[in-house]
Formats: sequence, C-alpha cells, structure tokens
Amino acid sequence: MTVSLLKQKLGIIGGGQLGKMMILEAKKMGFYVIILDPTLNCPAHSIADEHIIANFNDTIAIRKLADRADIITYEFEHINVEILKTLEEEGHKIYPTPKSLEIIQNKYEQKMLLKKKRIPVPEFIYISHEEDMKEAGEQFGYPFILKSCRGGYDGKGNMVVHSPGEIKTAFESLGGCEQELMAEEFVPFTKEISVLACRGIDGEIIVYPVGENEHEDNILIQTKVPAQITKALTTKAMSLANRVMKVFEGVGMFCVEMFVTEDKRILINEVAPRPHNSGHYSIEGCVTSQFEQHIRAISGLPLGDTTLIRPTVMRNILGDGEGSGEAFVYGAEEALRIPGAKLHVYGKEIVAPKRKMGHLTVTAETLEEALERAESAANAIKISTRKES
Amino acid sequence: MTVSLLKQKLGIIGGGQLGKMMILEAKKMGFYVIILDPTLNCPAHSIADEHIIANFNDTIAIRKLADRADIITYEFEHINVEILKTLEEEGHKIYPTPKSLEIIQNKYEQKMLLKKKRIPVPEFIYISHEEDMKEAGEQFGYPFILKSCRGGYDGKGNMVVHSPGEIKTAFESLGGCEQELMAEEFVPFTKEISVLACRGIDGEIIVYPVGENEHEDNILIQTKVPAQITKALTTKAMSLANRVMKVFEGVGMFCVEMFVTEDKRILINEVAPRPHNSGHYSIEGCVTSQFEQHIRAISGLPLGDTTLIRPTVMRNILGDGEGSGEAFVYGAEEALRIPGAKLHVYGKEIVAPKRKMGHLTVTAETLEEALERAESAANAIKISTRKES
Repeated sequence: MTVSLLKQKLGIIGGGQLGKMMILEAKKMGFYVIILDPTLNCPAHSIADEHIIANFNDTIAIRKLADRADIITYEFEHINVEILKTLEEEGHKIYPTPKSLEIIQNKYEQKMLLKKKRIPVPEFIYISHEEDMKEAGEQFGYPFILKSCRGGYDGKGNMVVHSPGEIKTAFESLGGCEQELMAEEFVPFTKEISVLACRGIDGEIIVYPVGENEHEDNILIQTKVPAQITKALTTKAMSLANRVMKVFEGVGMFCVEMFVTEDKRILINEVAPRPHNSGHYSIEGCVTSQFEQHIRAISGLPLGDTTLIRPTVMRNILGDGEGSGEAFVYGAEEALRIPGAKLHVYGKEIVAPKRKMGHLTVTAETLEEALERAESAANAIKISTRKES
Repeated sequence: MTVSLLKQKLGIIGGGQLGKMMILEAKKMGFYVIILDPTLNCPAHSIADEHIIANFNDTIAIRKLADRADIITYEFEHINVEILKTLEEEGHKIYPTPKSLEIIQNKYEQKMLLKKKRIPVPEFIYISHEEDMKEAGEQFGYPFILKSCRGGYDGKGNMVVHSPGEIKTAFESLGGCEQELMAEEFVPFTKEISVLACRGIDGEIIVYPVGENEHEDNILIQTKVPAQITKALTTKAMSLANRVMKVFEGVGMFCVEMFVTEDKRILINEVAPRPHNSGHYSIEGCVTSQFEQHIRAISGLPLGDTTLIRPTVMRNILGDGEGSGEAFVYGAEEALRIPGAKLHVYGKEIVAPKRKMGHLTVTAETLEEALERAESAANAIKISTRKES
C-alpha cells in the first residue's frame, strides 16, 4: 500500500472553462490546485486554492507556479514552450510533456510527424512564399486551405482559398512571410468526428467512444455520442486515436479530431494535447470524464473506465446577440425542465458574440431522444448582455 | 423567457463534506457561494467564493450570511432555529424552511407529526422521569431504545435498554431530567433502507430509487442501489417518502430512513432535512445527484430526473487506526484501479477513528459486480495518520 498521490499540488496554466472543469474533478478527489491566469474573475478563480494573476507568457510567474506546484498542466496549447522545457530540465513535472506540446503547437510539425508514422492525414505542404501557394493550388486543386502553423483555434488562422485570384489576399491576411504557414487539401468530408484518448505516466493508453461533431462558422456547436458511423469506422477511429497517442508519447488527455471522407477513409485533422470541447459530453456520458481522467493521468493515478453509460448529446452555449458586456443567462429554467438536461455555466463575466459561455448535456435512453431534448434545451437557453424586459 | 436564477448568491451554514458537494454542483451551474463554518480549512473552504469563519450559533455571523446571500441553506440540522425564524420573518429565503427544520430537530415532535398523519413509525413515548421508562419497558418489552430528542447523530444520543436494571444508568447517561428524552420500541428490522426525496419551491415532489443501508456501530458503512427488496416494498417505500415530503412541506433535499420489518411492514426511522450520506450514491448513480437537486430546489430551478443509470454501491471511508492527527490517504491507486470506482476525499485535515473522511462509489452493469468491486476498493483504501513505512 502506497501513500496516496493526492497530497500533490496541481498547477494549471489557464483558468478558463477547461481549467475550471479540471478543478471540479481535482477537488472531488482532494487535490490542492493553483492556477495561473491574467483575469482575476476567470471561471476557475473561485474554486482554485491559489491564483497567480499573470500573463501566460510571464516566465517569472510560470516559474513561481512551478515552484509552488508538484505537477504542472495547462488548458490550452499556445504557451511559450521554452520556459516549460527549462523547468522540465530542472526537474519539474509537466504533463503533457513540453516535447509533445512543442510538436503539436506547430501544425506543420504535427502533421509531418503523423505522416512519418503513416497515420493518414490530408495532403499538405509548407508555404514559404506566395509562389508556394500556386503550387498548392496545382497540387490540391481549388479550394484548398491556408493555415497558420501556430496559434489558430475555432477557425481563426485558417482561410479557404477558392481560386488563384485569392492567393495574394489570403497570404497577406494570414501574415505572409512573417508567419509560418501551410496549405492543406480541402477534404470533402461527410462527417467530423473526434476521439478522446489518454495516456498514463506508465504508458497505459485508454480511448473513449467516438463523438460526432457539428460546427457552425468553424466553432463547435454539437457533439453526439456514439457517432452515427459504421462499426468498422468506429473501430478504425478508436485505433487511430490509440496510434496517435503512441506517436506523441503524451501524458494526459488528448483529443484527436478526424474527418470521415465520402470514400470511408479517416484522416486526422488536428490533435489537441488537453481535454477538449468535443469531450465535454464525457462528464455525464461516461463512467470517467475527460477531466477526471486528465487529473488521474498527470498525477500518476490509474486511468478510469471510459464506457459510455447512455447516449449523450452536448451543445455549446455561445454568446448570443450583437454586443459584448456583462453576461446574463436567460431560460435556464426552461432548459432544465427537459429530462436529463444538465447545465454548465462557465461564469465568464463578459459575454461577446460566439464566445463559449457554457454548455449543456443531455443523456437519454436513445440518441434520438437525447438529440431532440438537447435541441429543445439549446433553444431555450441564451447567454447575452441584459435584454430589455 | 425569464432571467436566470443563477445570479442568486447561495449561503450555506456548514462547510463540511455535504456543503462541499453542494458547492461542486452549484459552481458547475455558475452560482456564487458563501459558507459559514468555524474551521478555516474545512472541506468546502477552497471552493467557496466567501467564507465567514464563525461558530454555528453565532447569530451575528448568521445574520451577516443572510445579508450577503439571496438564499440560505444548511448542511446539518442542529442549528438554532430561532435566528432562522427571525431572518425568515424579515424576508430572507431559507430552505428547508425553519418551520420544517424545527419539527425535525426534535425527534419526538417529528414522530408525533408523522403519527398524526398516519405514516407508520415505531411505537414511542415521551420520557419525563425515570418512572416513564418503566412504563416504556412494560409497553414495548425489552430491549427498547432511549433517545435524546435533540442533537443525536450516528448513534450518538441513543441507548439500548436491555432490562429494568439498566434504566437508571441509561436515563442518567443521556442527561436525565436535563434533556428531552423519548423511548422507542426496538424494531427487529430485516433491512434498513432510505429514500431521497426533494420538493421544489412550487411544491413539485420528486422521489429517488430506494437505497439499502448497512451500518456498523451505528455509522453508515455501505449503501447499495437498488435495494434488494420486492417491487411491492419498493413502491411502498417511495410512496411513503413522497407522503413524508408532503407532511413537512420542506423545500430542498430530504432523506427518509426506514426499517423493513420481518412481517414486511415499513416504519419511518428518521427524516433528515438535507442531502444525506446514504444519498451519495446519486452523484454517479443517478441522472441528477442529490446535491444538484438540492441546489435546483432551493434556487427555484425545476427538479431534475432521478433515474438510476446503473446499479451503484457507495462505501464510506472512515478514519482508520487508533489515533487522530494529520490525515493521509493510503491505497488510492489500488482503489482507483478497480473499474467504475470513483473516489471522493473530503479534505479534512485531521483524521480520527471512525470520522467520515471520504467515500467511494462503484457503478457497474449488475449490482453484484458493483458490490464486489466496492468491497475490493474499500479494502484497498485507508485514511489515517501517517504510518511508519
């Protein structure tokens, strides 16, 4: 019998909704949690034991976090990896490892490694100058996608290039020669799916059921689980997620986003080295949520059962309306009247159009029922600035 | 569409494990929470927005809590009800209502009201002097139970009187003429069961599945759900819980503890006006946990689905060993290796023998499987002072 690992202090870079949901699980098990986030009233603030208020690129503050915490993790991937590498060399525990983070941060490096390991990805090339984009057009046809190699999320940093005439504008609007860019074939997918996977410090890998995602304006709107794909594709997707985890040797939760093509191939779209929006369904849907799993993995505890308990649908609640300002929730009563509906309000003080303010999850006996109920709940609830009443 | 009730501030008297588990649900939905508890590092401390450090009978502090919060609730029933009644008269919202709390606080009043409403309870009489105990012995036979009307929990305040020769000692050791006492027939029950029930502000009542409890030394050790009783008894128990909720007109979670007798009668043992230890199974076992349900009820949100998702077993983790001192958790790794095992560590700094330090829950496809796994997990984990290694 070993002394528990629960006495360890966890440090989280980022106090947004992902940090908050990690902490809710960590506190359940009795961990002490320190966050680093520039916003005083960030979603995780009120439930963290300590809050270091500092910018994410503040190396002194990150060092302070490392000195106070036994294990460091993060809720987003756009972190200065150099400071994390230095801290790791000095003996600090950082999960997922800076090495895996560094590769994933750069979408080109990420895809190169996947390709090298024979994991199917869309075709892509590196873009050094505008001329390379013509080559991309010739190679992939139109449209194709131009992407910043670093820093994009929710469609930011991506542009669809429909014709040679759009090359110049696209190149310049993504930063041209100043930024690392890549071009990628446009995949006419039939479905977007994602698979959560987790790797323990001891190398154990566990994979979740396949979720099926719907986006609007490049922002995730809905995840339904199980994905409505064939059993063969489900098995293939889960096996690919397992292989991806082996490639990155990551510790902690990862999310592997994939395209299913018309000819039933699966291509890896992107890998996130952290709990992911498309995995929120696991809080109510699975025996072990992605957040509990992440805490278990980085703290050296055994990984938990990923069984889907009931069909589950997750809907994002995005900031509604035109303006930004103090956030108010409307219609929570109506939404919560729907059987099996669970409401997560992140507690962001300021709402802006399309900002991720919360999500709701519905579990039910059948996926059809869950979908209907999630639709009703999503229609009922709005988060916006105060409305005239 | 109504403005959400989520902007309300919740005030909780008590920051122990029940308060902590209430807050974990309240924060998920975005509530602001203030606790009142004398212990700085009580379980709920680190996840509350504010902590008023004061004794539970500090009327000035309770008034301060009422002034800062929109709704007051509590995690235990031994509170000075007078201050709550005064605050309610002044317009503060307090749930469960002081009126229902006042009746329940006094076990004699509680049972009298239940009896008046024709809800089956064990036979009982009020004990004013030692002489009354002889009458109890004649009426109920031996053994019978002597109980303090107020303040008992986990068997404290109860004594079994086996013969007339024990009357004097029992009477004196429970405080004699200084305390309100009652005698109750000894019910040779075959099972102890409990049913959670909740009532919304609008009067809606919802009842949970029946749980079957096992005690050791009067402390709850295990709850298994569903209870292994006939369908007829299950229906009867749930219907009784519903009737009890109507009697007390309580708002919020209640737990109704019952005995099942050899001749298949059900008698109400005790009613708790709060989430209850025997309802912890609902966190993983039911669509809506007793803690989320309590928050929904007192804040005016609709009540949630109480469906049992999978058979569930909850085991308490009591302080182990002989001494008291700083608490260490041993064997969490072994326990969490068991499929479907979830660990709740309350975060009490000091462990003492038999103190409730945490609990674990196992959900599985069958109750038999859940029982086996819960047994293994419970054997693996220990919370005690530091052991020599």
